[in-house]
Amino acid sequence: MYRRKVTGFVKSFFYRERSSVFLRKVPATLNIDFNLKHTSSRFLCIGSYDTKPDLIDKTQESCSFTYRTHTCGELRPSNKGEKVILCGWVQFIRLSKFLLLRDSYGLTQCTINDSNVSVTDIPLETIVKIYGTVVPRPENTSNPNMKTGEIEVSIENIEILNHVEKLPFNLREYQKPKEQLRLQHRYIDLRFPEMQYNLRQRSLMLHNMRRFLIERHNFCEVETPTLFCRTPGGAREFIVPTHHSGLFYSLVQSPQQFKQMLMSGGVDRYFQVARCYRDESTRPDRQPEFTQLDIELSFTTLDGILAMIENLLHDTFIKDLPKPPFHRMTYKEAIENYGSDKPNVTYDLRLKNISYLFNENHTVYAIPFSNKLGKLTAKYKEKVKELQKKYSVKVVLDEYLMKEFGNEVTSKIKNVIGVENAGILAVGEEENVCLCLGEIRQFLAPLLESKQLLHVDNTMKPLWVVDFPLFIKGENGLETCHHPFTAPHPDDVHLLDTDPENVRSLAYDLVLNGNEVGGGSIRIHNARLQEKILKILKIDSSKLSHFLDALRSGCPPHGGIALGIDRLVSIACNAESIRDVIAFPKSHDGKDPLSGAPNVISEDDRKYYHLK
Amino acid sequence: MYRRKVTGFVKSFFYRERSSVFLRKVPATLNIDFNLKHTSSRFLCIGSYDTKPDLIDKTQESCSFTYRTHTCGELRPSNKGEKVILCGWVQFIRLSKFLLLRDSYGLTQCTINDSNVSVTDIPLETIVKIYGTVVPRPENTSNPNMKTGEIEVSIENIEILNHVEKLPFNLREYQKPKEQLRLQHRYIDLRFPEMQYNLRQRSLMLHNMRRFLIERHNFCEVETPTLFCRTPGGAREFIVPTHHSGLFYSLVQSPQQFKQMLMSGGVDRYFQVARCYRDESTRPDRQPEFTQLDIELSFTTLDGILAMIENLLHDTFIKDLPKPPFHRMTYKEAIENYGSDKPNVTYDLRLKNISYLFNENHTVYAIPFSNKLGKLTAKYKEKVKELQKKYSVKVVLDEYLMKEFGNEVTSKIKNVIGVENAGILAVGEEENVCLCLGEIRQFLAPLLESKQLLHVDNTMKPLWVVDFPLFIKGENGLETCHHPFTAPHPDDVHLLDTDPENVRSLAYDLVLNGNEVGGGSIRIHNARLQEKILKILKIDSSKLSHFLDALRSGCPPHGGIALGIDRLVSIACNAESIRDVIAFPKSHDGKDPLSGAPNVISEDDRKYYHLK
Repeated sequence: MYRRKVTGFVKSFFYRERSSVFLRKVPATLNIDFNLKHTSSRFLCIGSYDTKPDLIDKTQESCSFTYRTHTCGELRPSNKGEKVILCGWVQFIRLSKFLLLRDSYGLTQCTINDSNVSVTDIPLETIVKIYGTVVPRPENTSNPNMKTGEIEVSIENIEILNHVEKLPFNLREYQKPKEQLRLQHRYIDLRFPEMQYNLRQRSLMLHNMRRFLIERHNFCEVETPTLFCRTPGGAREFIVPTHHSGLFYSLVQSPQQFKQMLMSGGVDRYFQVARCYRDESTRPDRQPEFTQLDIELSFTTLDGILAMIENLLHDTFIKDLPKPPFHRMTYKEAIENYGSDKPNVTYDLRLKNISYLFNENHTVYAIPFSNKLGKLTAKYKEKVKELQKKYSVKVVLDEYLMKEFGNEVTSKIKNVIGVENAGILAVGEEENVCLCLGEIRQFLAPLLESKQLLHVDNTMKPLWVVDFPLFIKGENGLETCHHPFTAPHPDDVHLLDTDPENVRSLAYDLVLNGNEVGGGSIRIHNARLQEKILKILKIDSSKLSHFLDALRSGCPPHGGIALGIDRLVSIACNAESIRDVIAFPKSHDGKDPLSGAPNVISEDDRKYYHLK
Repeated sequence: MYRRKVTGFVKSFFYRERSSVFLRKVPATLNIDFNLKHTSSRFLCIGSYDTKPDLIDKTQESCSFTYRTHTCGELRPSNKGEKVILCGWVQFIRLSKFLLLRDSYGLTQCTINDSNVSVTDIPLETIVKIYGTVVPRPENTSNPNMKTGEIEVSIENIEILNHVEKLPFNLREYQKPKEQLRLQHRYIDLRFPEMQYNLRQRSLMLHNMRRFLIERHNFCEVETPTLFCRTPGGAREFIVPTHHSGLFYSLVQSPQQFKQMLMSGGVDRYFQVARCYRDESTRPDRQPEFTQLDIELSFTTLDGILAMIENLLHDTFIKDLPKPPFHRMTYKEAIENYGSDKPNVTYDLRLKNISYLFNENHTVYAIPFSNKLGKLTAKYKEKVKELQKKYSVKVVLDEYLMKEFGNEVTSKIKNVIGVENAGILAVGEEENVCLCLGEIRQFLAPLLESKQLLHVDNTMKPLWVVDFPLFIKGENGLETCHHPFTAPHPDDVHLLDTDPENVRSLAYDLVLNGNEVGGGSIRIHNARLQEKILKILKIDSSKLSHFLDALRSGCPPHGGIALGIDRLVSIACNAESIRDVIAFPKSHDGKDPLSGAPNVISEDDRKYYHLK
């Protein structure tokens, strides 16, 4: 195994005989893709064909149970003289003499030396089977950019296995179609190396997580139902009509109740790669179904769960993570310093509480940044206006400080934020002030970075946010901040009756470079405490009687977590969207671009499900 | 690793201090459970706590991330003198002096020697945490039936972690409640060793399958959507309303279309442990959602797929399977010899075509069996009557042969079936005659075996049934025998227009001791052939345009299979029902005994989903 570091811009490739390398605009962070990492689990390595090191461990068989002898990424000078059978897609034909054959593992140049063999009329992407002999390439013609660049296969026979009738777009990396067209013809889009790479990584990452949990730590993977009853107090759940008139299942939004019942049932080390459903089709970048790594553990503590996840990720995540323990931050610290409960700590740019500079009873925070940035453009000023409205706070930009606060106070402010800094201030209710500046922080950072006025450390910076409030104020009284089964912090239980808003919970979120990638909590195991919390939340406990019975009948203390696999894999693969790590994602509004689902149903179905 | 063979009746146990062993009526095949098998995958071993060898590999950590130091199945004389912390359920308390503590890994006897510690008022199943010291048991009091029977833990402190308020039944193996009550309180039922064992086995078997596919054969696990469009020509699919009035998803009955599109997309070695849905709630022993191991492979043949599954099962199935290749039988042979397309070949008892003894144009088959069985009882005669009606054939029992056929023909029949045999005959249309006798064969076998008149070999006898017909006659013309994407047998393609009923397919079923445990086929990869088949089946191809486009745009030849995991695991675990290997199964008619789902939905949901 080796490590190749590519710096500067990321290279992109297109498939031709000479695999020329083009520079292309791609996100700068992509360069990390070219690193190869060999962790304790031997199947964790990064790569994609031809341009990236092999994904495939050499001890694995990629040709077993098939009629090919080798993949298109496999042949080397050491195979010289071997009779081989290759199968794949016709990538390119040049001068009726060279045929570039592609499969998921690479490209192999095949040459026509026999006058009985003709490739002139074969359209690109035709599926062929090639019988041939491995020969070294003529001197000075080997291609160092191709894994198989030192050999070619002299074709003895070529068999067309399937024809191509129709191609909505070409498989050219430099002319990739728009996402909507890609999703509509996903079966072609999946042939691009990025998608091949992403799906392989997803498979390997989940497999390594399973190995960690089952083989090292004796967890038991249990499949729980997805057709269940509605969870009170959660997100909107899809419903599924049955042939019993008026009766519906709900598609689970998570296996929460089941995993807690498993704890009561003595399955004390549970996990599941669980499919979950939420009807949030109108929210962008949300999928109606998604995958989470769902874990629950009996006889554990908050520290136990956190250590488990730290070790799990450290051993299975593709990118380098710091050694456990990961940094922890309270919810309060996160809000006050970064204006977010999922702060991006790859750069500093912290908020500063400067309320003490003012006589009034207001809360004032400032976000100081280099004054070399200059004034915000109209676009960003517009954004600031929107945020003011969203959070009902007053935002004061650096250039208006004097006008707003006068000489004396402004000079105090400048003193605090530093003379080389500009500052944006927000005035209003504390949490809103912070959240507003948190959003401003998020658009300031790239602006500052682009002018080299802010250091952004793009390594992985996992962070636990803890000590969340148990409740938040909602329209109809208190609502749960995490979910109704989260345990209150033992130091605050006495406040449940008198001051519930100040009760902290034993919930925790895992944040990775500004993305929430997981969350969980120590659960309530005592039925009476659970009933009390349900009462505070005005949730009808009769709808959870099965669950309360499970707590009543001998249930160990327990806690758990769920990791969002789509997001985690997309970070690992530097994908721009979670759709790039899902084989067949839905597009906006829950529509399936391939089949057009959701669809009209038949009259028969309407009758059967009593939907007249 | 060791192998312990238990013969005779299976023993069952109940948890008491002395773990006395009781004989109990259980299926005779259960004895195989006590074998320990160590395959190439080191995590495959059978066992359950105290009575069965350890499931847990000693290198695995069962206490990591928890506050216990050991499990209740772990302590041995070598731990003498160690300070330990155990957590678990109070299984039994005797004489206020002995407390038997249980967790999922075993039982440990804890003793009270300190007058400050009292256990008198602790109800059974209370969750406790015990601090103590490991001491050897006094001479002559060790219990060889308990893994921890040579030690006990002298309690220094006992902490109650959770109280028990309510127990609908006791955890006594010898007074197990009826299934309905067990399912209703599954969180208690799961504590029984059988359920612990079954869930562990399921987890390990699936993990080993993943290891075989990913690590050895470079497969890629891909998660495909469950919210999709309706598959034409399949089973009834659940529908899921959306907030778009009149538009519905269907819950997939299998990932068939997706996996074929993955083949077109170059994901040439795909598998998935897939959740599938069928609305067959009115059929007994069917679950509305179930799990299949779904595999698809490009550039392969029927032999390739069969070899893959043979190797997969041979290496990962818990019970001994014969070395590959497994026996193969054509559909025709199966019907003619056993009267079933999933014949149980653990016993012989074959059908015999004796049509040639008759002048008429009838088809006559006989099933010969030892005449020592005597006449069928009224119960079975009633059953025969039902079968006659079901298959529209005439069945003639041995005692009526003379009356029905006269002296001469009867003596010819006796000649053929053997003088020591009786025979049951069926007359009518060939396939119906065979299927009818096939069902009779199934109830004759246990009758004969119980009187030692038939040898049943209860080892695992996997069998491939191949050469299925491509079509079957349905009410409205030809229907597919497997699914519409199955390839016709290449030798019969020329019959598609002229004699479609005699076209065989490239489908295959895997049968294990009379149970269909998997099925698949080589698929159609040619869009024109696929269109032709859809036309014959009168399926509107416009509903599959995305799928046909995938075939048209460069799709490799491919084939695959799906294994029914619920059934496979239930055979591996000798479970009586698939419900015993599912953590939270539905009971009859798709009802969830725990939560009562399906339920009435809210007015808000009705409005949102336009279900007024």
